[in-house]
Amino acid sequence: MNYQPCPDDVRFVLNAVLDATPRLNSLTPFAEVDDALQAQLLDEAGKFVAEVIAPLNRGGDEIGCRFVDGKVIAPPGFRDAYQAFVDGGWPALSAAPEDGGQGLPAVFEAVLFEWLSAANHGLTMAPGLLHGAYECLKHHGSDELKQHYLAKIASGEWLATMCLTEAHAGSDLGQVRTRAAPQADGSLRVAGTKIFISGGEHDLSDNIVHLVLCRLPDAPAGPKGLSLALVPKWLPDGTRNAAHCERIEEKMGLHGSPTCVMRFDDATGWLIGEPHRGLAAMFVMMNAARLHVALQGLGLLDAAWQKADAYARERRQMRAPKPAAAPPGAGPDLIAQHPAIRRILDTQRAWIDGGRVLAYRTAIELDVAKHHPDAARRARAQRWCGLVTPVLKAAFTHQAFHGASECLQVFGGHGYVREWGIEQVVRDARVTMIYEGTNEIQAIDLLARKVLADGGAGLSAVLIGLRDELDASRETDADVQRRLAQLRYLTTTVAMAAQADTVLPYEVADDYLRVVALVLLAWAWARIDVAAAQAGDTGTRWSAPAAAFRRHLLPEFDMRLGMVKRACEDAARAGTA
Amino acid sequence: MNYQPCPDDVRFVLNAVLDATPRLNSLTPFAEVDDALQAQLLDEAGKFVAEVIAPLNRGGDEIGCRFVDGKVIAPPGFRDAYQAFVDGGWPALSAAPEDGGQGLPAVFEAVLFEWLSAANHGLTMAPGLLHGAYECLKHHGSDELKQHYLAKIASGEWLATMCLTEAHAGSDLGQVRTRAAPQADGSLRVAGTKIFISGGEHDLSDNIVHLVLCRLPDAPAGPKGLSLALVPKWLPDGTRNAAHCERIEEKMGLHGSPTCVMRFDDATGWLIGEPHRGLAAMFVMMNAARLHVALQGLGLLDAAWQKADAYARERRQMRAPKPAAAPPGAGPDLIAQHPAIRRILDTQRAWIDGGRVLAYRTAIELDVAKHHPDAARRARAQRWCGLVTPVLKAAFTHQAFHGASECLQVFGGHGYVREWGIEQVVRDARVTMIYEGTNEIQAIDLLARKVLADGGAGLSAVLIGLRDELDASRETDADVQRRLAQLRYLTTTVAMAAQADTVLPYEVADDYLRVVALVLLAWAWARIDVAAAQAGDTGTRWSAPAAAFRRHLLPEFDMRLGMVKRACEDAARAGTA
Repeated sequence: MNYQPCPDDVRFVLNAVLDATPRLNSLTPFAEVDDALQAQLLDEAGKFVAEVIAPLNRGGDEIGCRFVDGKVIAPPGFRDAYQAFVDGGWPALSAAPEDGGQGLPAVFEAVLFEWLSAANHGLTMAPGLLHGAYECLKHHGSDELKQHYLAKIASGEWLATMCLTEAHAGSDLGQVRTRAAPQADGSLRVAGTKIFISGGEHDLSDNIVHLVLCRLPDAPAGPKGLSLALVPKWLPDGTRNAAHCERIEEKMGLHGSPTCVMRFDDATGWLIGEPHRGLAAMFVMMNAARLHVALQGLGLLDAAWQKADAYARERRQMRAPKPAAAPPGAGPDLIAQHPAIRRILDTQRAWIDGGRVLAYRTAIELDVAKHHPDAARRARAQRWCGLVTPVLKAAFTHQAFHGASECLQVFGGHGYVREWGIEQVVRDARVTMIYEGTNEIQAIDLLARKVLADGGAGLSAVLIGLRDELDASRETDADVQRRLAQLRYLTTTVAMAAQADTVLPYEVADDYLRVVALVLLAWAWARIDVAAAQAGDTGTRWSAPAAAFRRHLLPEFDMRLGMVKRACEDAARAGTA
Repeated sequence: MNYQPCPDDVRFVLNAVLDATPRLNSLTPFAEVDDALQAQLLDEAGKFVAEVIAPLNRGGDEIGCRFVDGKVIAPPGFRDAYQAFVDGGWPALSAAPEDGGQGLPAVFEAVLFEWLSAANHGLTMAPGLLHGAYECLKHHGSDELKQHYLAKIASGEWLATMCLTEAHAGSDLGQVRTRAAPQADGSLRVAGTKIFISGGEHDLSDNIVHLVLCRLPDAPAGPKGLSLALVPKWLPDGTRNAAHCERIEEKMGLHGSPTCVMRFDDATGWLIGEPHRGLAAMFVMMNAARLHVALQGLGLLDAAWQKADAYARERRQMRAPKPAAAPPGAGPDLIAQHPAIRRILDTQRAWIDGGRVLAYRTAIELDVAKHHPDAARRARAQRWCGLVTPVLKAAFTHQAFHGASECLQVFGGHGYVREWGIEQVVRDARVTMIYEGTNEIQAIDLLARKVLADGGAGLSAVLIGLRDELDASRETDADVQRRLAQLRYLTTTVAMAAQADTVLPYEVADDYLRVVALVLLAWAWARIDVAAAQAGDTGTRWSAPAAAFRRHLLPEFDMRLGMVKRACEDAARAGTA
């Protein structure tokens, strides 16, 4: 079965849980965004994703991208589908109207990309970096570069890449060696080889705009000597630039997206932003890009869940254990009725629904950070995004892979064969734990670089904000408030222990991130509870995953909290010994 | 890199930890088995696996098995390697000497198959069912069948399959429909279609002996109406039997092993064992077969670990956080020095080493159950195998997949591409969580069918035995003793709650199995500690994974214990409400 977006589920999260419309209306450019516009947009997006994008997913995996004579041929149907995507104005959804965009909130783009990823992760990689490239160029490009490239990128007519990694420089970009030599005409000659370049070469768009991390001749060593160059496949005068794909990787999955080795042979490029400030220029798009990867995780998990749920409602094996005795002669039950299968389905649902609350909320904070009239409110939103985004990236991509594997288990042996498409989701999802910063890097980014940078004050402010959105007279809310306080105390403990033991934060970073992820999810489910009650919902749509969350997922919060605490105690003991 | 068996590690577990030789010497057929024989066998097996089997693993995945004109062509080199395996007498390692076997302990066969699976999971599937088929035929076959087939199967000259699953009958074998019609000459005509038949067709051996679960005309419905038929590919008179491969599955991994759809068109067969007692005849080999799958899990995890460990000792990225300040100008550190990577490597090592203690101990108990002169001791060994085997099958195969995925993470983006071979391990390992009874079925088998069958008395006896092997004056041992007591108390709690709520055991089975797995692993590491101290080991070979186990893995014991306990409390509350 192909992925089928469910706009009702998303609308519930946006409106009943997050009050999205009033929040957006407080931002000047979105004063006119109303529920009707939202509804129309979601319905159209859902239809487009279901009809145009989802049916191509299997071919993207089985046929995949092919490398022929230096060219990359996309899987069947991808070029037409991408053209339809451009024609529909989807790439330009949240680009500014003055650049040819539709000027809509980032949160709508978030929903769109979640659905696209669920339906066809491979194809979605192509426009996945467009918005980031657009922002990067808009904020750091020269007027001339903007004039030539900005509208084409905003509209998606030309696709873009991020060329960071080299064979010896992955997580450690400071080791990048690609050189950029300034020319008399103000251009650069870029020379070097980049690896793992998604969409480095393809036949989806007429031009490809590479953003290349490189080093000017006088650059200091390390990450502070990196500059950013724009290197197009086709130069403005119509000649082919010396930016070539050497080969594409054979990968575990994601066969619908070409992962290219790119060779720049003194290719012509132009500096974006200041010399040696390339990382800063790229990091402007980091939170948005990482949030998109988190959304890929949510989307892939939902795709896996839909398959498993449908199978569990059709497949019958054995009698399920039931409180009442089975009628004599009754046949085997649906596997959806067996507790082990029910648990898998409900816990994944808990991640998806709670995850949406957090991801869409973060997307709204991106909108707030950009457009709110009050600078203090913008700063608060920026703080939220900086702290929450790495948590969502790591937790949701982890869950995409592990949860998809659980969903595969629902199929038994049938899950391991191609036929049902579930094993593709598991293979495709695995890469999201790696790219855009490995999940281990996210954890270090969260704890060592961000939380501890101000002794935990910033995170504490975010947690207090969350606490204040809860109602202590409700038992569930009070429980979440207690956990939020536990996390604040834990953060203080880690901050103190880290003063004596500078290695400690790196040792507990992964556990600490899980603590944050689970308390955020607990907060989200407390909010869903209230919204479902207010909506008069008495079915199991929201209550079953809520119960599964508390029974099966929340205990990990206590476990990880205890692990971090014990590590701090051990460090203190070692320090005084 | 190809897998490289490490006999020293295995010897340490067998001798220093498990006292294998004296234990085996107490069994009549193994009175002469000494350390020298063990050493020679391990060295030869290690050499054979490294030189003949391991180099074919990549081709097994990339070229895989091909289906051409109804025939299955094994990957390059597989036929010759299997022939060398037969010529070396390896399939007959633990078969009885009177059947042409070498009459060696099952525990040596366990080590051999762990290494084989680590080196080449796909090829190892071919002889994987030989020993089970041998035992099944030896105990249930007629003299005529035995005369014709037993020696050929013991030697591996002919390979064997287990034909259980049908499209609608997976975990629920009671739904099997394949028919067997008795003929005047005492043979059967077998008709039906079986799926997921590993090695149903291939070119590795001249004949293939299928053990087919089927239904006689007068059979009662359900699992108690199943019979077992032996259906050879080639009949004794040299004619080709009507047992045909229709197609092979496209799978996520394990491409080196053909997973066949087998069509029996009134094929000729013969009954094994009593009519309608086919499951009993097959279940005689269940504990051994499940232990072998657990060993596959250990092997695959060790294969993944070896790759990740080697990569982490070569790859340099960034400075690692260190207690002392780094010397100025120092370059990036080995990633093996980064805490997040160290944790992945050491925790997987903890699973592998502790897992070996448990798996080899269980294999020795299989030997004891078969050969001990004292019936009470044999019964105790049988009890151990019945209770511990499903735990090892579920826990080690779970870890094979999840731990291999962690090892993949060590490679960053390089792990997601084919080149390093690590993604193959992840794909191959996934199926072990499904076949030979899904891990959810193992959990139900453990708790609902076995532990609760006698109110927990059998498990309690096993746990008391483990407790008595520890020394309460050692802090670590005392901690494990406390946990063993906690598990006994938990079991009583579950048994009482299950009387009022018959669904409860199915709801907590997965958590309960993890509790048992982790306490067994804790016991194993307590034993390793002592053995390493006695051996005068002062390095980190055993202490680093021991520390990682206690810091990162053991907390899950408390978490799962709490989850099961709370479920019992909730059930009690609901019962009195």
